[in-house]
Amino acid sequence: MSEPRSPLADNALELTRALIRCASVTPEEGGALSFLEGVLGADGFDVERLTFSAPDTPDVDNLYARYGNARPCLVFAGHTDVVPVGDEAAWTHDPFGAVTDNGLLYGRGAVDMKGGVGAFAAAALDYIRANPGFPGSIAFLITGDEEGPAVNGSVKLLQWTREQGEEFDHCILGEPTNPQALGDMIKVGRRGSLTGRLTVHGVQGHVAYPHRARNPIPALMRYLDALLATPLDAGNERFDASNLEVISVDVGNQATNVIPADAHAVFNIRFNDIWTLETLQAEVRRRLASAPEGLPEATVRFDPSNSVSFLTEPGPFVDLMCDAIEAETGRRPELSTSGGTSDARFIKDYCPVIEFGLVGDTMHQVDERTPVADLEALARIYRRMIEAYFSRISPAG
Amino acid sequence: MSEPRSPLADNALELTRALIRCASVTPEEGGALSFLEGVLGADGFDVERLTFSAPDTPDVDNLYARYGNARPCLVFAGHTDVVPVGDEAAWTHDPFGAVTDNGLLYGRGAVDMKGGVGAFAAAALDYIRANPGFPGSIAFLITGDEEGPAVNGSVKLLQWTREQGEEFDHCILGEPTNPQALGDMIKVGRRGSLTGRLTVHGVQGHVAYPHRARNPIPALMRYLDALLATPLDAGNERFDASNLEVISVDVGNQATNVIPADAHAVFNIRFNDIWTLETLQAEVRRRLASAPEGLPEATVRFDPSNSVSFLTEPGPFVDLMCDAIEAETGRRPELSTSGGTSDARFIKDYCPVIEFGLVGDTMHQVDERTPVADLEALARIYRRMIEAYFSRISPAG
Ligand SMILES: [Zn+2]
Ligand SMILES: [Zn+2]
Repeated sequence: MSEPRSPLADNALELTRALIRCASVTPEEGGALSFLEGVLGADGFDVERLTFSAPDTPDVDNLYARYGNARPCLVFAGHTDVVPVGDEAAWTHDPFGAVTDNGLLYGRGAVDMKGGVGAFAAAALDYIRANPGFPGSIAFLITGDEEGPAVNGSVKLLQWTREQGEEFDHCILGEPTNPQALGDMIKVGRRGSLTGRLTVHGVQGHVAYPHRARNPIPALMRYLDALLATPLDAGNERFDASNLEVISVDVGNQATNVIPADAHAVFNIRFNDIWTLETLQAEVRRRLASAPEGLPEATVRFDPSNSVSFLTEPGPFVDLMCDAIEAETGRRPELSTSGGTSDARFIKDYCPVIEFGLVGDTMHQVDERTPVADLEALARIYRRMIEAYFSRISPAG
Repeated sequence: MSEPRSPLADNALELTRALIRCASVTPEEGGALSFLEGVLGADGFDVERLTFSAPDTPDVDNLYARYGNARPCLVFAGHTDVVPVGDEAAWTHDPFGAVTDNGLLYGRGAVDMKGGVGAFAAAALDYIRANPGFPGSIAFLITGDEEGPAVNGSVKLLQWTREQGEEFDHCILGEPTNPQALGDMIKVGRRGSLTGRLTVHGVQGHVAYPHRARNPIPALMRYLDALLATPLDAGNERFDASNLEVISVDVGNQATNVIPADAHAVFNIRFNDIWTLETLQAEVRRRLASAPEGLPEATVRFDPSNSVSFLTEPGPFVDLMCDAIEAETGRRPELSTSGGTSDARFIKDYCPVIEFGLVGDTMHQVDERTPVADLEALARIYRRMIEAYFSRISPAG
């Protein structure tokens, strides 16, 4: 290391390593939230542990912590659960070993997103120790159900904070947002997601007597053609184009002498702010109705969705984040609305939210890893951001 | 009953009832072949029982019986195995009870095809008793594997007879061939059957980043469109048109945020004598190659098929069968090549074969049943046919 070590950088690495060593594969807490509870509580945070339950899903542990009661309140949101390790034998190092090797920290969750949690915790503690009476408060919303069904996680945790009268001004979600290098990209929005399931009802029969049957498969193809006929939109200055992908077609007929009764398809739409859930579902139905006359009947049903697009408009909060990133990395990040969904879709109903974290290229893969230098730089970025935030931002409420 | 009972009619009914009482659901022999062995052996048939085996399929019992060594040899082919009873509680009478009720004989296999076996056995025994030194021979080829995988049944039984030096002149296959009324239809041919399996190889990816993936499903639809673009042929004076049905499409992707790697389809072609297996497979490949440029690659493989079309040309043998049917029912049967495949596709390589049996409308259903009058009339038709055959037909060889 050419740069001198700092307590902030050391702490970011040590907190992240400790979190990686907790085998918190969704829905297991694995000790990660308990560790965080100890670390934050020791420095004066009020910490609440919240277990949420729902039928047909595992109970999930969550954590809420707050230092200070004043406004503005800057929230850090994240998750300590991780996806499974996959082919464990293919890992260079124990996925829960938190081994550093040649400047790289290996482990499941290193970038998604124990690294983000460790970096922000180190930054917050460093700031609080230096500024114990700062004019505002810092909160942590940490869920154990981001990689799972997301039923007993952020949604319920946010509802609980509202019931407690907690109010937030701005939120940083620490997901890995950078495609290639730290500082590439902030996510200031995400497209929404809607899944539809299409069934075409034909009439079963013997292949030797097709006139007595009604094959649903060619009809399914025509309905899918109608869904795919033209782009949903061309996107706009804020978002990429909305996109419909057929992700499965299924009949499951093993009998080669039988024309099946039903055929099924599943499609997923990533949609921008040109659409609401209602207008989009109406467009799907309109397209299905535009299929050629005389086809066997099709029915569509939509999976429950709470995922509409969100966008945090440019302004002082976004600018502060960009400044902190540029000061540390020399790069002015792209403000992006690309990619999949995140818990920001829930947080947006509570306060403006942006996403910035590590480089995501190894997330969910074997040998998930981050350069230690990135982790330390991220802690410094967060530290700059916290400092600037409380000197420059007034409460939103 | 207004007509006086005859020993022939009584015997047809009693033999059929005894066969129905044997629970010979494929691959179980259920005592059916043993019963037939006893009946035929008692009247002077040489009877051979043959058990055939193959990996991954159950062993199956079969029976070959012959009375006389002279030519011509008239063969009766059939099966004593039956399909499962289905919803047993929905049956009016015990499916293995062989109950007669209001002139109807109920039971699994009543029409498909223990009735045909019982009627022919009764007719043959009646003829032999009246004409013990007739100028020819009568044989039975009875399999227990027609409704199953058909691996250890007629194919191997026929091969075995060839190895023994047995030679046949003509064959009657006793499947239920009449759509509505006894005498409606003789099958003098069948279309062949070819099953193909199509796989399109795409590139898996996240639905939020479709440009990094390659969805195989729209491509599969285009390949299927190419297969279905135009009819394979218009049929000819002998056969209905060939027909391709897509019988399944399958991806099995449960993850609504994932574009799948591969998509699969299965199609079955019923084809007439315009095609051979080779020309048909070439046409499938030609059509796939005619799909739009730039699609992800598709591969097709064909299930092993020994099912090409067969046709027994009009002539004295077919005429005799029509005459016998018309004499008994007053109806001149249609000579048809419609419907699914049958064991005639194997027999055709040994001697000319036609199919005639009971009315098939209840086959494979709950309450499978035949009018007792039909069963008795079928025995009389077979009896007339045997009589005419040995007075009018010369050996083929
Ligand atoms: Zn994550
Ligand atoms: Zn049959």
